[in-house]
Amino acid sequence: MYKGETGGEPVDLLICTKCKMGLPVEDEADRPGVKLHAALRQAGLPDGVRLHAVECLSNCDHGCSVALRGGPKRWTYVYGNLDAQEASVETIVEGVTRYLDTENGLVPWRERPVHFRKNCIARIPPLELPE
Amino acid sequence: MYKGETGGEPVDLLICTKCKMGLPVEDEADRPGVKLHAALRQAGLPDGVRLHAVECLSNCDHGCSVALRGGPKRWTYVYGNLDAQEASVETIVEGVTRYLDTENGLVPWRERPVHFRKNCIARIPPLELPE
Repeated sequence: MYKGETGGEPVDLLICTKCKMGLPVEDEADRPGVKLHAALRQAGLPDGVRLHAVECLSNCDHGCSVALRGGPKRWTYVYGNLDAQEASVETIVEGVTRYLDTENGLVPWRERPVHFRKNCIARIPPLELPE
Repeated sequence: MYKGETGGEPVDLLICTKCKMGLPVEDEADRPGVKLHAALRQAGLPDGVRLHAVECLSNCDHGCSVALRGGPKRWTYVYGNLDAQEASVETIVEGVTRYLDTENGLVPWRERPVHFRKNCIARIPPLELPE
């Protein structure tokens, strides 16, 4: 099993491919969420990050949305207001790389991409709850 | 281990006890999140629901916040705009009871408390990702 720099578990990067960003999208392939997923597949994610297309993350007013999780010791994060453009893709690659390099998912504030700082929708504690 | 009506895993009900609801709270014990946690402890949750006080769920603009999860097959849900009043407590007890009675965390829309329908902040797929 992959162990990141800190010996952590691999990370799952979940992309809501149902996202329409409120647009009148008729073709499934034109959904912004599908395009974001495709862009990330091309982007070159670090080893240890597994990309997944998932159903609606219920953050429809602030999509596109992604979630990061990885093993029982990391916090899970949901980020929003993303799209398939280069800036968003770079943000996600940078953010997930930082996240991968933590044991508990807690990236120091100043090391988070600015967009992640401002667009954290929610976070969920690790399965192994901190004391 | 507890098995609910559908043979599912027990459920964890996580309460953000850091929530101030934007108020100038000076005393830790006066935090609305702490009060919500205390009210739920008194409320009589069904067997199989474990109540936890947790750190900030990063939904501060729409607190108080709770998260529901339970085992590798259920979706995790975050709900917001709650407080320690009776209506919120009843909503949470009803919602978590419905959730407990599912295998995958998906409560049919019409069976969800109205407040949960309107105040779902985000949801995260099960650890065992659906195909």
